[in-house]
Amino acid sequence: MTDMQSLGVIAVIGGTGSEGSGFAMRWARAGLDVIIGSRSSEKGQRVAAELRQKLGDVRLRGASNLEAAQMANVVVLSVPYESQEAIIESIKPGLAGKVMVTVVAPLLGEKKGRYTPAPGGSAAMEAQAQVGHETRVVAAFQNVSAHHLADPEHQIDCDVLVCGNKRADREIAVALAKAAGMRGVHAGALQNAAVVEGLTAVLISINAIYKTRNAGIRITGIDA
Amino acid sequence: MTDMQSLGVIAVIGGTGSEGSGFAMRWARAGLDVIIGSRSSEKGQRVAAELRQKLGDVRLRGASNLEAAQMANVVVLSVPYESQEAIIESIKPGLAGKVMVTVVAPLLGEKKGRYTPAPGGSAAMEAQAQVGHETRVVAAFQNVSAHHLADPEHQIDCDVLVCGNKRADREIAVALAKAAGMRGVHAGALQNAAVVEGLTAVLISINAIYKTRNAGIRITGIDA
Repeated sequence: MTDMQSLGVIAVIGGTGSEGSGFAMRWARAGLDVIIGSRSSEKGQRVAAELRQKLGDVRLRGASNLEAAQMANVVVLSVPYESQEAIIESIKPGLAGKVMVTVVAPLLGEKKGRYTPAPGGSAAMEAQAQVGHETRVVAAFQNVSAHHLADPEHQIDCDVLVCGNKRADREIAVALAKAAGMRGVHAGALQNAAVVEGLTAVLISINAIYKTRNAGIRITGIDA
Repeated sequence: MTDMQSLGVIAVIGGTGSEGSGFAMRWARAGLDVIIGSRSSEKGQRVAAELRQKLGDVRLRGASNLEAAQMANVVVLSVPYESQEAIIESIKPGLAGKVMVTVVAPLLGEKKGRYTPAPGGSAAMEAQAQVGHETRVVAAFQNVSAHHLADPEHQIDCDVLVCGNKRADREIAVALAKAAGMRGVHAGALQNAAVVEGLTAVLISINAIYKTRNAGIRITGIDA
């Protein structure tokens, strides 16, 4: 188990988006030291100030994406799939030796609820190929809706499947899940991220068929 | 909703295998009219007789795979992925106009718990391409373990994700899930079967990591 306090500084790249700021709020409320990254340092600082206003006494700063990555111990990538490659390129100097947790879930089907694999197998594997072996990519949180994250009081009835090649790296995402009020479940190697990303499309279909916005998944039969 | 009795005759292709006979037992016990298909008619009949011995007064016969498909209203494909193409070829004359429910979950990774997509996108899409448009393929039951199916008293704590292009076709698999003691959940188009097949690899990883054989999945947040 990774202790929550040993996580150090968490950078949320794309932290001014609805999903990114949802994570930032939840983690700051849990006592973590969070930096919101944005394309511009000013916007990051402004959104961080707004969130501090809301949350009171928390450790939450804003910065540019690159500055945030450089200052962080753990980098969380929360950007649209379409911007992933360019944004990773822009933060690369801040990534070496770190774990990058990607929450990116590409929706490439002709309809969003129809799974179509990313060209590199999965967004997470594309990210790993891009950052090289000095950064370890872990995929997590793909199935959690931005809508529910944004309300810090909302109890999210969904497990967080965590894929990554090393258990110790996955533990970081499991600890981040816990800090955000969810259960993280080790789901094996990074190769399995394709499945977890695909589940997002499946959940979108399920939401449409059952006329809800709340579909999530739970793993049964484990002691975790 | 598809009424259980309106399902008609169910052929379980590969019904003498551990998974296939688990389904056959559960469906026969639920009152369905089931034919166990096997490569040889004799073996199908022998296994059916053994199961009747166990179960008492049920409608359960054996036949060759082709005969079973020809006599059935609904065809369930329960064969190893490696045999899928050859066996579908052998039953093709019995498939036109029918729904074929495939339970096949290919495990193609260098380790079984690492998802590697089937060359045609998924085993289910490969099956659909092979049978042509006169047969509608539905994917279901990929995440249910043969081990648990085999014990008809075992309460399986796992939802059955059902993928298929038409709701009415998926309803058939949802009704079959119910008859086997599980909840079927509509999971969208057949394209999504890749995800559900991949979940089988993920659950194998989860079982290994959490040292169990019981990992399953549940969909939360829906009224079904």
